[in-house]
Amino acid sequence: MTDFGTRDSYAGSMKGVILNIFPRATVVDLTHEIEPQNVKQGAFILEAAYPYFPSGSLFVSVVDPGVGSERRILAVKTKTGIFLVPDNGLITRILQREKLWVARAVTNQRFFMKKISSTFHGRDCFAPTAAHLAKNPEQFYKLGPLITNPRRLSFPEPKKQGKKWIGEIIYFDHFGNAFTNIPRNLVGLELKNALRVRIGRRNLGFVRRSYFEVEKGKAVAVFSSTDLVEIAVNHGSARKNLKLREGTPVEIF
Amino acid sequence: MTDFGTRDSYAGSMKGVILNIFPRATVVDLTHEIEPQNVKQGAFILEAAYPYFPSGSLFVSVVDPGVGSERRILAVKTKTGIFLVPDNGLITRILQREKLWVARAVTNQRFFMKKISSTFHGRDCFAPTAAHLAKNPEQFYKLGPLITNPRRLSFPEPKKQGKKWIGEIIYFDHFGNAFTNIPRNLVGLELKNALRVRIGRRNLGFVRRSYFEVEKGKAVAVFSSTDLVEIAVNHGSARKNLKLREGTPVEIF
Amino acid sequence: MTDFGTRDSYAGSMKGVILNIFPRATVVDLTHEIEPQNVKQGAFILEAAYPYFPSGSLFVSVVDPGVGSERRILAVKTKTGIFLVPDNGLITRILQREKLWVARAVTNQRFFMKKISSTFHGRDCFAPTAAHLAKNPEQFYKLGPLITNPRRLSFPEPKKQGKKWIGEIIYFDHFGNAFTNIPRNLVGLELKNALRVRIGRRNLGFVRRSYFEVEKGKAVAVFSSTDLVEIAVNHGSARKNLKLREGTPVEIF
Repeated sequence: MTDFGTRDSYAGSMKGVILNIFPRATVVDLTHEIEPQNVKQGAFILEAAYPYFPSGSLFVSVVDPGVGSERRILAVKTKTGIFLVPDNGLITRILQREKLWVARAVTNQRFFMKKISSTFHGRDCFAPTAAHLAKNPEQFYKLGPLITNPRRLSFPEPKKQGKKWIGEIIYFDHFGNAFTNIPRNLVGLELKNALRVRIGRRNLGFVRRSYFEVEKGKAVAVFSSTDLVEIAVNHGSARKNLKLREGTPVEIF
Repeated sequence: MTDFGTRDSYAGSMKGVILNIFPRATVVDLTHEIEPQNVKQGAFILEAAYPYFPSGSLFVSVVDPGVGSERRILAVKTKTGIFLVPDNGLITRILQREKLWVARAVTNQRFFMKKISSTFHGRDCFAPTAAHLAKNPEQFYKLGPLITNPRRLSFPEPKKQGKKWIGEIIYFDHFGNAFTNIPRNLVGLELKNALRVRIGRRNLGFVRRSYFEVEKGKAVAVFSSTDLVEIAVNHGSARKNLKLREGTPVEIF
Repeated sequence: MTDFGTRDSYAGSMKGVILNIFPRATVVDLTHEIEPQNVKQGAFILEAAYPYFPSGSLFVSVVDPGVGSERRILAVKTKTGIFLVPDNGLITRILQREKLWVARAVTNQRFFMKKISSTFHGRDCFAPTAAHLAKNPEQFYKLGPLITNPRRLSFPEPKKQGKKWIGEIIYFDHFGNAFTNIPRNLVGLELKNALRVRIGRRNLGFVRRSYFEVEKGKAVAVFSSTDLVEIAVNHGSARKNLKLREGTPVEIF
């Protein structure tokens, strides 16, 4: 996962480096279209996808506005796999979900390319480290010193106000579906209960089982595939049709 | 093939699921940029590509505006391979080309993820079924009941009018080349014959062997790589330069 | 690498053809977003990426406005691998870097699909040739006659004017970073020396070690990951923020 886009040779070069070191690697593109330098968005996308990858996977995640600065490169091992990330908060949401982890600052130059540019650590540091670790995960302890203070970002949390929960929209997907920061288990209510959703003055009524329970073109609240309250428009775009934005408040009552 | 785009974690999650079940799978992205919910476009792209894949391939195709409704998931076996599709007509053009096929409704929950979201069957139903089938194609009969009535969509057909054939533009590619619904073998004429093309008042003259037979910037009719009459502009975009749209009539005379 | 984009079935079809011939192939997308028919851009991207791929790699590069004309298809073997390209100059920058090469015109129809369209040689000629060669590189000599005159394009070169070097911007990446045609080794100066950069009336001062050495939002000159003088804006886009264009002159003094 990167914010490199797909127009340039950047993601391809990283794969070249990986396959050069470990020809049998299976490389999967999660996405290269994180908004440039939007570390929070990267953290959100990484959290959404990682549970579906095989145990032992290596997640190379480069959204790295601080490339070339003194920011550390981290390798974070959880029961799911190893995450290689710049130490800028990209790992925040993984650490919230994975209670057991061990992290190292990657300082051992033996894992890097011999020549390291100041602008493309994805190719020169992250990719070769990933390939060496994929080839032999036992080398994790050789990466560099254990650290216990990975940088964490704060994400907006839903707040309780009387009987209501107030959250906000934190992400729009390709279809214009709006994801809120309200997790299914936070509200602690099952679908059978009277869980209703309001955006501004628009009352969406109860959370439904699927988009399909409302007519085409109508707004609907559902639980997302990542178990968040999601606002959608059946056969349409909630973003466009309801004129929503990131940060738009959403009430659960 | 999906309409999920490449910004989100959706296609990547599907690959994670597949590789978790069948680590040796070779996963190929056909495209994830089908226009959201444009089932006909998906049917067209799938038809264009599938003949070039190895025999026994599994085609996982998710353009699925009815996700979460009662629409069926189909597995359609042809001599080329197995197609996993929502039962919304996405398979239409494959069925027109492949005379021998057998289809099952995929109802056996054993092939799905344990937890099934209502909004992302690509990850929770299609991907795991594909992986299990790729691993062991003999399980096809276990998917669910045989069915004989896959939903079909109607596509515009060229019509004969006197000595003319009248078709229309059905797709523009990335270069702005315009594909018509007039197949090479329908017109039943070879290049040596006097096969001429007209759009509106613009007479393109004879179908040529290649773009290159007209000057740069000039319009030309050729047979497409999928054997349809195609309108192009040498070194340019027929879509922009000729101001064409889907549905623009094309005459062969 | 192609200019086919990712919306259509083109890149996917090529992969189908490759895997049909050589199922164990590892196929890597470098990019499919070369600007349509921009051969020079393709040459630049190919040059940036190829050194990072494993020795023996096959580089299938299709930016091919002359498809269907009499332009040749070339296979160029260097110590890095084999490059399959249309003979339109796409190989120019590889030949400038690789002093030892041998080239053949690919004329042996045995390497092609049985049916060859006039509009999609990527699928019908390049992909099957690549797969056959990847499967058995010894067949290189069977491709067709040796040739010594691959077509070359001229790229703008930096010029010396008194003590100054004057180059220009030749490429913008996804982040809006501007790449010049001034290579690090041409200017022959190391960072410790007084190497200063000017665009129009804007004096960027010395070339820095990284984006990070200037404040957020400020312009900076660095050496790119491909060892060119690069103009960037820390946490921003040089293209937008500095209103640069391809061809904008850059002075080193």
